[in-house]
Amino acid sequence: MTEIQIEIIGLIAAVLTTSSFMPQVYKIWKLKSSDGVSLSMYLFMFTGVVMWFLYGILIDSVAVISANFVAGILQLIIIYFKLKLK
Amino acid sequence: MTEIQIEIIGLIAAVLTTSSFMPQVYKIWKLKSSDGVSLSMYLFMFTGVVMWFLYGILIDSVAVISANFVAGILQLIIIYFKLKLK
Repeated sequence: MTEIQIEIIGLIAAVLTTSSFMPQVYKIWKLKSSDGVSLSMYLFMFTGVVMWFLYGILIDSVAVISANFVAGILQLIIIYFKLKLK
Repeated sequence: MTEIQIEIIGLIAAVLTTSSFMPQVYKIWKLKSSDGVSLSMYLFMFTGVVMWFLYGILIDSVAVISANFVAGILQLIIIYFKLKLK
C-alpha cells in the first residue's frame, strides 16, 4: 500500500468519526438547549483532542491532524453553547 | 523528542478521548435505557473507528491502534444495548 492510499483510509476514518459529532452540534443549535450533554465530558474530550492534534503533528499524520482539528472546533462550539445557555 | 515520548503523548490522548465514552456506557447500563443516543450515529462512528484501527496498523501507531480498539468495544456495548433495549 502506498503512503497516499494509507492516508486516504485515515481521512475516510476521520470523516466518519468527525461527522458523528455533527448531529449533536445541530441538536444543541436547533433546541437552543444543551441539557443532554455533560460539560465535564466535553472538556475532557477537548483536552484529549488537543493532545491527538499534537501527536498527529509529531508523527506527521495528515489524517490525525485534520480529524482532531475539525473535532476540536465542533467541541468548542458545543462547550460555548453549554456555557452560554447555562 | 524520542519515539517513546511521542507515543506517550498519543496514549494520554487515547485515554482522555476514550474515557469520555465511559459515562455514556455507564448511563445506559444504569438507566437500562438508551433513548438519549442515536443508533445510526453509533453505527457511523463504529465504522469510522474500525477504519482508524486499520489506519493505526498501517502507520504502525500504538496509540491509534489501542485507542480505537477500546473505543470500538465500548461502542459495540452501546450498540448492543441499543438493539436489546429497543
